[in-house]
Amino acid sequence: MQIAIQGEAGSFSEEAALRLFPRARMLACATFAEAFESLVAGRVQRALIPIEHRLAGAVSESYDLLRLQPVHIVGEVQIRIEHNLIAPPGVSLAGIRRVLSHPVALQQCRHFLHRHRRWQTVPFYATAGSVKHLRATGAQDAAAIAGRRAAQVYGARILAPGIEDNRQNYTRFFLLSRSSGRAQTTFPQDANKISIVFLAPNQPGALFKCLAVFALREIDLTRIESRPIPGRPWE
Amino acid sequence: MQIAIQGEAGSFSEEAALRLFPRARMLACATFAEAFESLVAGRVQRALIPIEHRLAGAVSESYDLLRLQPVHIVGEVQIRIEHNLIAPPGVSLAGIRRVLSHPVALQQCRHFLHRHRRWQTVPFYATAGSVKHLRATGAQDAAAIAGRRAAQVYGARILAPGIEDNRQNYTRFFLLSRSSGRAQTTFPQDANKISIVFLAPNQPGALFKCLAVFALREIDLTRIESRPIPGRPWE
Repeated sequence: MQIAIQGEAGSFSEEAALRLFPRARMLACATFAEAFESLVAGRVQRALIPIEHRLAGAVSESYDLLRLQPVHIVGEVQIRIEHNLIAPPGVSLAGIRRVLSHPVALQQCRHFLHRHRRWQTVPFYATAGSVKHLRATGAQDAAAIAGRRAAQVYGARILAPGIEDNRQNYTRFFLLSRSSGRAQTTFPQDANKISIVFLAPNQPGALFKCLAVFALREIDLTRIESRPIPGRPWE
Repeated sequence: MQIAIQGEAGSFSEEAALRLFPRARMLACATFAEAFESLVAGRVQRALIPIEHRLAGAVSESYDLLRLQPVHIVGEVQIRIEHNLIAPPGVSLAGIRRVLSHPVALQQCRHFLHRHRRWQTVPFYATAGSVKHLRATGAQDAAAIAGRRAAQVYGARILAPGIEDNRQNYTRFFLLSRSSGRAQTTFPQDANKISIVFLAPNQPGALFKCLAVFALREIDLTRIESRPIPGRPWE
């Protein structure tokens, strides 16, 4: 089994994919679009993409690509986002001058960083990528904030585990397969949840009427979100 | 009038604030939380915060802070997000080796950057901040992607205007005032729109029943979004 993920080795996406398929090989993609394209082109059997961060909200780009690309949602997994202070071998707490990570991770560790106010925080493009960068450049005055797996993958040390402000931070991922193109698709036997995209007229009561379809059948809704219509601002 | 914004001089937030109040003085804040706190503490009369990017979706952190902080929404403004290739004086197209900007801006200019594949793209924490950084470091081999105003503010030149893939890219901002703490608040005379946060039981038909309140009164909905409940994952 080969799975396309957005992000590199050691990323939270990789951790989520290994949770579902411990022996899968990963195809690391730079962008969400690339992960979708690898799946649609048949270069991988599955793609795993983040759809919702419990604290930060929906991943809009994933929603848009789901609508545009011929794929099916065939599974779901969620992982807890634990942040750790990770340093190259030989760097101790006392030797740290700078801390690199994705801006969201830096923000989610505000309490911890506030206790080390003299450290300069450096926004970086990714969490695991910041560990990789420190190892590649041989930095000896810096640490990174990333998941536990990034430390393993890049041979770095966890100086402080679980430094996130809020332990209730989860990310939910969708497992995707390529659409067969046939009208009828085979879903997993035990499937009990479905995602629907629909367009309603822009008039009072329109959403109410749509939801009647579910309410009158006692079908539970887990989440709803308005998405923009291309070419029609704010509809 | 003094307005707290998240972002620095030359940012899209500043542009939006000046659209509403051309002579306002800005209090540039590093985070959304800081902008809210400045307003609540009475250090400014208004705060202006982004609430929705037409392409990228809702700004979750703004939603959360609106719920937690004693503020009122008293206005709204939207601006078109135009990206420009901006370089320090003396740097020409031929001299560019690197392009800095916020990751979202880099992504929104993919077509343009694809035509200049040899340039290295460098993710940075902010759009206007990347122009500021180039000027501060005296870089002569790099350009930044940011709004028109960032070029003015930091004395840099626009080498290529309007390089975003999608011209339909708008950001909507809320103008906030401090809550008086009284039950009855004075809203603008011509107010015709309101935002409501409500909690529904997690059972089939719950949202349907809530929306009945609006549907039966012919009140139009412009947007709806599920938000997490602290301590109750995925409800």
